[in-house]
Amino acid sequence: MTRALTVSIDAMGGDAGPGVVVSALLKTIQRHTDVQFVLHGDEAQLKPLLARQPKLSGRATVRHAPGRVSMEDKPSHVLRRGKDTSMWRTVDCVKAGDADVAVSAGNTGALMAVSMFGLGIIEGISRPAIAVIWPTLKGQCVVLDVGANVSATDEQLVDFAVMGEAFAHVIFGLEKPTVGILNVGAEEQKGNEGVRGAAQILRNSNLPMDFHGFVEGDDIAKGTVDVVVTDGFTGNIALKTAEGTARLVSSYLRQALKRSMLSKLGAVIASGALNALKRKMDPRAQNGGVFLGLNGIVVKSHGSADAVGFASALDIAIGMARADINARITTDRSAVTAESAGARAGEL
Amino acid sequence: MTRALTVSIDAMGGDAGPGVVVSALLKTIQRHTDVQFVLHGDEAQLKPLLARQPKLSGRATVRHAPGRVSMEDKPSHVLRRGKDTSMWRTVDCVKAGDADVAVSAGNTGALMAVSMFGLGIIEGISRPAIAVIWPTLKGQCVVLDVGANVSATDEQLVDFAVMGEAFAHVIFGLEKPTVGILNVGAEEQKGNEGVRGAAQILRNSNLPMDFHGFVEGDDIAKGTVDVVVTDGFTGNIALKTAEGTARLVSSYLRQALKRSMLSKLGAVIASGALNALKRKMDPRAQNGGVFLGLNGIVVKSHGSADAVGFASALDIAIGMARADINARITTDRSAVTAESAGARAGEL
Repeated sequence: MTRALTVSIDAMGGDAGPGVVVSALLKTIQRHTDVQFVLHGDEAQLKPLLARQPKLSGRATVRHAPGRVSMEDKPSHVLRRGKDTSMWRTVDCVKAGDADVAVSAGNTGALMAVSMFGLGIIEGISRPAIAVIWPTLKGQCVVLDVGANVSATDEQLVDFAVMGEAFAHVIFGLEKPTVGILNVGAEEQKGNEGVRGAAQILRNSNLPMDFHGFVEGDDIAKGTVDVVVTDGFTGNIALKTAEGTARLVSSYLRQALKRSMLSKLGAVIASGALNALKRKMDPRAQNGGVFLGLNGIVVKSHGSADAVGFASALDIAIGMARADINARITTDRSAVTAESAGARAGEL
Repeated sequence: MTRALTVSIDAMGGDAGPGVVVSALLKTIQRHTDVQFVLHGDEAQLKPLLARQPKLSGRATVRHAPGRVSMEDKPSHVLRRGKDTSMWRTVDCVKAGDADVAVSAGNTGALMAVSMFGLGIIEGISRPAIAVIWPTLKGQCVVLDVGANVSATDEQLVDFAVMGEAFAHVIFGLEKPTVGILNVGAEEQKGNEGVRGAAQILRNSNLPMDFHGFVEGDDIAKGTVDVVVTDGFTGNIALKTAEGTARLVSSYLRQALKRSMLSKLGAVIASGALNALKRKMDPRAQNGGVFLGLNGIVVKSHGSADAVGFASALDIAIGMARADINARITTDRSAVTAESAGARAGEL
């Protein structure tokens, strides 16, 4: 690679518009001095915004895209008629080799469809997955799939385990991440056919992971394992249930501290600590779902992300682009497939 | 009913043993002066425990059961060989009409199997479900199923909606509870066949509920609806994920308040408010999963519940026993079935 590491950005994707993207870039260029950015979108809006930020000169360029994918557009519609949209061009820029990673805050379903169509799926993987980083009592873990699919077979859960292990390897620097499959109990006979089948395959595999077996919902935040594998239906609901619970507890805390003069005084004195807590729980600090399993890296920022949130998604994107995650996924997946074939041959 | 309202209790079910049950009873008899209790278990342990509490004299009796179901026993084993266990006798006491509701802190799978075998399923309902009361920003809601089944068809989700609506009616006193189906998005086309089919049936039904459509994971704690319907796999994982998140946030709060002398001082001054928060988040205050869909009411207390937690399960059990929930479930379910049949006939 002779060019610098380059991030392709859908500047029209989020609810807040391109202003947020430019503000996020101002934060990101300080942390990553050697990275270039290509912004896709309406140049009539983007060029004046960039021109007002001399610090971005030489770091960010604009490529005009007249169309825009809305949050309501169906993926099939975008696939048929979306070639002129900023989202399509953002992914296409990675496909063409002009950038190393794509970032969009747009419509998740459309972004997944455009990414699958544009980049294709890694050989040996049947479906891509969306992975997120989840805060735990011990630090952080990876949870996937959180919404690319509404169900998963045993082999697809194995795909997710392989991709999650590779993700934990490159993002957390772990040689042998611990991996668990989300289930309703830890015992081998628990759960549906998909999770039992996947556990069977992973138990017999020789992957660079420490397969822990089944974990339960409360094990995610406990940090029992580095990678939690689940289908996109359960994973999406678990993720949003956790977000809802965190907001509920924060609301209880605010109410409690407003109850009396004494509690208000205590809150003022402890305000530094309470602000630190607020920052720690800030969903913007964890923003960014990573699409895994594609021939190229795509990061989905939350649609309502502000500059802090979008910068966090850019951080994840740059981290992913620096690591060669797909080589590890391909090697590990073909190892499992070969092992399974070998095991079946042995049974004859 | 000439006898007083009577609660049948598995005194040997929990991890902590019968001492906790007796301590819980001492709390409960103050709140419910007209309720009687039958304790099933080892009379050599139970009789001396009761004899030491003169306040329980005349309120609680002991029925000897020599066997005990362990947390490791498989449901099938208990069904074959468990007739002498305290769990079996507790359910049997309701079946015989000697009590109005059964409470056990034992093995959930075994309790469900024994309850289904002993009491049978309500006509028109295909599978029972476990319902819990969940704290929300607006108050409380009901979530079911949280673990009786590992999957659910569209018709089974409709069963759960009917049972949840009846539960919210008797427990919260709502004439027309709002009901939502848990999904990965609010749009009609989202999700798997089960949730889409169930939504279709409920949209066309004329039940005493306000069917809201789909809700997402964060809607549970927001209190968007009074009843959240889901399959037992997703519901169990959502419930435990929420428990894990609440513990994570509490841990962050404790760490933050210990960070400096100033934050410690603030915490001491606000300790009344922080203790109130702790009580509000105390899982013991929400203890008790209710088995719905059986010809009899069974309440499952958490296995590790202490006296406060077990007393909370007894409160729920007494509330359920006072209300005639099963009549409403039977009426509503047969109404849906008749409507569906009518709709199909109209299509010819």
